[in-house]
Amino acid sequence: MATSRRSGRRAGASGTREAILAAASALFAERGYEATTIRAVAAQAGVDPALVHHFHGSKEALFAAATRLPYNPAEVIPTLLAQGLEGAGERIVRFLVTTWDDEARRAPLLGLMRSALTHDPAGGAITEFVRAGVLGPLTRALEGPDAGLRASLVLSQVAGLAVARWLVGVEPLASAPPDVVAAALGPTIQRYLTGPLKEAP
Amino acid sequence: MATSRRSGRRAGASGTREAILAAASALFAERGYEATTIRAVAAQAGVDPALVHHFHGSKEALFAAATRLPYNPAEVIPTLLAQGLEGAGERIVRFLVTTWDDEARRAPLLGLMRSALTHDPAGGAITEFVRAGVLGPLTRALEGPDAGLRASLVLSQVAGLAVARWLVGVEPLASAPPDVVAAALGPTIQRYLTGPLKEAP
Repeated sequence: MATSRRSGRRAGASGTREAILAAASALFAERGYEATTIRAVAAQAGVDPALVHHFHGSKEALFAAATRLPYNPAEVIPTLLAQGLEGAGERIVRFLVTTWDDEARRAPLLGLMRSALTHDPAGGAITEFVRAGVLGPLTRALEGPDAGLRASLVLSQVAGLAVARWLVGVEPLASAPPDVVAAALGPTIQRYLTGPLKEAP
Repeated sequence: MATSRRSGRRAGASGTREAILAAASALFAERGYEATTIRAVAAQAGVDPALVHHFHGSKEALFAAATRLPYNPAEVIPTLLAQGLEGAGERIVRFLVTTWDDEARRAPLLGLMRSALTHDPAGGAITEFVRAGVLGPLTRALEGPDAGLRASLVLSQVAGLAVARWLVGVEPLASAPPDVVAAALGPTIQRYLTGPLKEAP
């Protein structure tokens, strides 16, 4: 039955997919995120660029797949903000806690964070990806001259949560129930997104 | 003139001081922070434990000196909170920005952070030191059953600021004037110290 359901699929598609991801990993590590093009990844993998687009849609999605991320932030951020900025602080924290509390899903995220925070050669590509795939979408979703500052403030608290709860395991935050984390950090993220930054709230 | 001013100093005092710091560095890295005693450091350095106490006063101070930290958090935190918790959020942020914006002073702090966030063998000792020398004093200065959670929330935003502003350099937060950082993060730290955690402020 599985064979007939898959009959439309090209033989060797999964091999091609793996070749694309291997080429992408190598080029991102070697050239960084910005300087790597989908065209170069396709050439390295020996496939047509249209096939890379077909499988991955965007360079952010390709990077997320190549690094085994459980989600592509460039897609998730607009989705989390699609209902409006009201309440987005708590939605963001709940999404992060749900995803990262799952050990299998957080493993590649923590690996990437460790590389970005050290002198790992891959660190540069990760930092560039965070700019393009996290700060970019967040800044575009915000308004006003402070949009970039707001996005970088959000990132600072998100990075700090990741460090304290998952990377180092600072108690009692590391074991706090998701509702407690959402209630504690949601208002912080919300203020960075939409609150006054120049004075006390 | 320098010679006469220093005439009260024992010959070889600076050699002894260095021997103590070298012994402390080795033992902290080998055994971790908690398991290392001032007595063991003194034995390793071939000096009397009283001399280690004389030079460093406490194990936190010894660790700070051995790792070339520009300050001992176990001393700084009570000082920053001595004027009361009111306004402490902004005082903490201003202290951090003043210290860490200085490249020479932040270098050992960033080195320690990198070790703590990776699989560096010294990472365990650093994490134990953060518990004893940062979270401990902060928790004791706070009140109520949430004191530990509040301290770990403060640490999460402080770690995130360090990552974004100094370790990775996320713009525009990395280049924001100290007043902007204090106004943006001060209220966050203040709420974690004294504000309501269970609902929006």
